[in-house]
Amino acid sequence: MRKVTVAKKILIANEEFANQNRRFLSQRKIPCLNVISSPGSGKTTILAKTITTLKGKVKIGVIEGDIQTDIDLQRIQATGAPAVQINTEGACHLSAAQISAALHKLPVDDLDLIIIENVGNLVCPSALDLGETAKIAVLSVPEGDDKPAKYPAIFSRASVVLINKIDLLGVTNFDIEKVNADILKLNKGVKIYPLSAKTGEGMQPWCNWLEGIAAKRKQ
Amino acid sequence: MRKVTVAKKILIANEEFANQNRRFLSQRKIPCLNVISSPGSGKTTILAKTITTLKGKVKIGVIEGDIQTDIDLQRIQATGAPAVQINTEGACHLSAAQISAALHKLPVDDLDLIIIENVGNLVCPSALDLGETAKIAVLSVPEGDDKPAKYPAIFSRASVVLINKIDLLGVTNFDIEKVNADILKLNKGVKIYPLSAKTGEGMQPWCNWLEGIAAKRKQ
Repeated sequence: MRKVTVAKKILIANEEFANQNRRFLSQRKIPCLNVISSPGSGKTTILAKTITTLKGKVKIGVIEGDIQTDIDLQRIQATGAPAVQINTEGACHLSAAQISAALHKLPVDDLDLIIIENVGNLVCPSALDLGETAKIAVLSVPEGDDKPAKYPAIFSRASVVLINKIDLLGVTNFDIEKVNADILKLNKGVKIYPLSAKTGEGMQPWCNWLEGIAAKRKQ
Repeated sequence: MRKVTVAKKILIANEEFANQNRRFLSQRKIPCLNVISSPGSGKTTILAKTITTLKGKVKIGVIEGDIQTDIDLQRIQATGAPAVQINTEGACHLSAAQISAALHKLPVDDLDLIIIENVGNLVCPSALDLGETAKIAVLSVPEGDDKPAKYPAIFSRASVVLINKIDLLGVTNFDIEKVNADILKLNKGVKIYPLSAKTGEGMQPWCNWLEGIAAKRKQ
């Protein structure tokens, strides 16, 4: 019983920060996306390419979650976008309290969109509310086409799934039709964008979607 | 304070099961490996190929950890090896108590080696003692060469690192020399085997190592 009570208290504390973040974002009419995937699916490469593609159209700020190092932060800052690093020092996901602190470090009033890059972990971050507008899942082709069935939590909760590294479709056994069907079985309303952040193929429909949600909020 | 006490109690309970597993394995002189990686790095493909390569030499039993589904169990059972499924139903790692129950379902006295395939997660399983003889980390080439620096916990604790999918070295920017150096910086005594479970390249040195530890225990 005691264990349950403490776990509940931690979740309630997180929910309070998440609600606070939601209020902060909605008062400023700024959408905030929480990007979740395994390590190495290409979150940072997608972000950097997205920022470059939308330069002059959508001003994007980034919150970089990593267990250790600022390798990804440097890659984002190289695009010229404002970015804030959170190092979890071992923890497997970002918390709403960490996002609250990071939001106050970003020049939010100058931005159209905030993107959170969560810690590389397909499991733990999917359950935790950060106060985000939407969750974005990334699955990369070399990870295999059985992942939506094996890790349903994030694919059920995401508003968008990006299937990255489609340039490797020819050298893997990845059945993209099966993946689409498995994701839609879990999550009827989800948008799926197959793309390669490396070659640029398929980036435009995803960037159009981002432009759409940034514009809706700016009205 | 209360939070710390409860967390400690959970860890102590896990440690008791881990010690129990260690005694169970050492009484039977059977080595047990805990294989840890991101989703999609190829743990199951490596295991299936390893079992086939060592057929007639090392009798391997498998404990399959997954959040949901028995997709991987079926792939292992297709090789003819005895295997037991654990579904964590959402939890991000296997616990020593789950391993204790699974060990009693395997025909341990007929086996030379037990391999645990942990839940696909590069972060959480690295900290938890299951009573295993050694931890094996798997990193696949498409995940990128920055992973040892970004996820040091597992690379520091592993006795062996398998670098899988080397057949994709030509189509990625993976610097294998840098990865070797980064891993050795974290963990001087670690063995690193680059291989491709898909093509079979590099499987033999890894299988020789397994044969060695199985033989040592059989003496």
